[in-house]
Amino acid sequence: MRIQGKHYRTIAICDDGWRVSVIDQRRLPFELAMATLASVDDAAVAIRDMAVRGAPLIGVTAAYGIALAMHADPSDANLHSAATSLAATRPTAVNLRWALRRMQAALQTLPQSRRASCAYREALAIADEDVANCNAIGQHGLPLLQQAAAGKSGQPVNVLTHCNAGWLACVDWGTALAPIYAAHDSGVPVHVYVDETRPRSQGALLTTYELAAHGVPHTLITDNAGGHLMQHGKVDLCIVGCDRLTSNGDVANKIGTYLKALAARDNGLPFYVALPFSTIDWSLTDGVREIEIESRATTEVTRITGRDRAGTISDVDLVPETTPVENPAFDVTPARLITALITERGRASATSQGLRELYPEIPH
Amino acid sequence: MRIQGKHYRTIAICDDGWRVSVIDQRRLPFELAMATLASVDDAAVAIRDMAVRGAPLIGVTAAYGIALAMHADPSDANLHSAATSLAATRPTAVNLRWALRRMQAALQTLPQSRRASCAYREALAIADEDVANCNAIGQHGLPLLQQAAAGKSGQPVNVLTHCNAGWLACVDWGTALAPIYAAHDSGVPVHVYVDETRPRSQGALLTTYELAAHGVPHTLITDNAGGHLMQHGKVDLCIVGCDRLTSNGDVANKIGTYLKALAARDNGLPFYVALPFSTIDWSLTDGVREIEIESRATTEVTRITGRDRAGTISDVDLVPETTPVENPAFDVTPARLITALITERGRASATSQGLRELYPEIPH
Repeated sequence: MRIQGKHYRTIAICDDGWRVSVIDQRRLPFELAMATLASVDDAAVAIRDMAVRGAPLIGVTAAYGIALAMHADPSDANLHSAATSLAATRPTAVNLRWALRRMQAALQTLPQSRRASCAYREALAIADEDVANCNAIGQHGLPLLQQAAAGKSGQPVNVLTHCNAGWLACVDWGTALAPIYAAHDSGVPVHVYVDETRPRSQGALLTTYELAAHGVPHTLITDNAGGHLMQHGKVDLCIVGCDRLTSNGDVANKIGTYLKALAARDNGLPFYVALPFSTIDWSLTDGVREIEIESRATTEVTRITGRDRAGTISDVDLVPETTPVENPAFDVTPARLITALITERGRASATSQGLRELYPEIPH
Repeated sequence: MRIQGKHYRTIAICDDGWRVSVIDQRRLPFELAMATLASVDDAAVAIRDMAVRGAPLIGVTAAYGIALAMHADPSDANLHSAATSLAATRPTAVNLRWALRRMQAALQTLPQSRRASCAYREALAIADEDVANCNAIGQHGLPLLQQAAAGKSGQPVNVLTHCNAGWLACVDWGTALAPIYAAHDSGVPVHVYVDETRPRSQGALLTTYELAAHGVPHTLITDNAGGHLMQHGKVDLCIVGCDRLTSNGDVANKIGTYLKALAARDNGLPFYVALPFSTIDWSLTDGVREIEIESRATTEVTRITGRDRAGTISDVDLVPETTPVENPAFDVTPARLITALITERGRASATSQGLRELYPEIPH
């Protein structure tokens, strides 16, 4: 993705050839700052504290975390402990465990002397595949926006999205935003309603930043507003990303996604979920019952970061510290509410049949 | 309502016998501060800038605004201009127009010399009736919580509410919170999930403050979280307030209410709406099409007020000022999603038939 003419990925190797540079997403939109990861602990902290976030990017960061571990100590014990510590950072996005399994499979039978170089190669391969997958998701989603545009006589297609499933959630392009970028770049007029996405406000802070940088028209709304806009014909379709897809088509995604899917169904609007294959958890068949939902710190709800009158980034407490809070980070949208999945292989119904047709090589 | 042993109403006459004292709700929960209204303009500003809010309290404040106008100048011209300026403050809550019509009806045939004293009497009558109505709503809602408690073997009944429809939205007791206070006071164990209610966060700032002051167990959640909690059996029923009810049972309430009603239906949970008769707009029969929805300032979304590290109440900007924003303040929950209405006369289905039975004296 280009920002003011310069090409960025969310994660890349530093000039020294071994450390890892990531965009520190906690400082956007006010500052585009890079953070350097020099150890597996740095990678684990970056994931847990959400300097990097988004299911695909979490997976790539974990892969580079293994590479950093192998750079320091390529022993079996360190490979095991690095994978264990990275796996414990966040429970819901399955890309994390997928990437760790892939790294372990690639490394564990190698002699220790070859592990570090192989780990960096494999992490880069995962990153490059993610870019290619996101690009393909964009191309497979593009016809949906073209079809929607065909009925609008030149008026923009209004897309609602939740959280950030753009290039900042991936390595480049994004999942939910990839079809939007593809449409915009090919001349389809598109306008995006961006849910704020409390408590961490990834929509307000990251999605509006991405869309503005790419020149895509957009409007920030509160998480409460989407249903009202749908009732009044101001939304044509919804596209969201995904943190874990079960083999029957249930979708774990950022908390609040389920409410928007209900509103889309109630208003007869399509609700699409975009994801690469690494987000699929083939072992699960009931998302609401089986997917572990992360509970995050209550301060994410009670304390808000912004720019104060002096221009400094600072925090304010919204409520007294004694206020009891629950903060589930994801919810599950049942497959029955999903119009179609958009993956790097194409579109499919959110059913085991649909997934079987897209991925016939997976034992079902 | 008692706060630290002292009884408060949200609005009352000052000791001087003519000015009006209100709780400035923009300073809660960090400070319980009173504001003094000395003119109809003061009253209009207090309503528009939301020093006072909540459909019933807006109505009472408008009534006192007329009294302040008559205190200054009891002419026909001033009565007309005061009613016009107060009616223009906020478009959605119908209690405002109901109270103004009642004040005009009481005053316009009187000689000017009697208008001021009559206006104060009538405004106090509206306030006292609101207190009685809210108390009755509490008693009519109480059996719903008692029934829910009967199936829970001593575990608390979990109620989800949106925005603030407590005593701060009225003169005392509240609408949606009145049955909760009645249940708590009569020994029914009750716990309330409080939606934050962006953009103005009335749930976080006002409802948690009320419930804490009264000792009712509660948990603050983001607006995104309610559907997830319902999916996992953590909510037994929902109760919300109302800004305008159409004669067929459609409910305009704070933006986001519709999404929670959809989630309640999807999870087979009851969704109740509590309101006094002054919130009913008998002239409308289709809420989504006919109710004017207020658009408020974009800074309500982009700028957040809280307590900074130094303990000072201050603002931070969440996003750059150039971010495009839409900020609808209400949405409409269709009658089909509402289990029952709770009014001062009892409970009824959200249908024209249900309302006709409760209010047979209204020409239908």
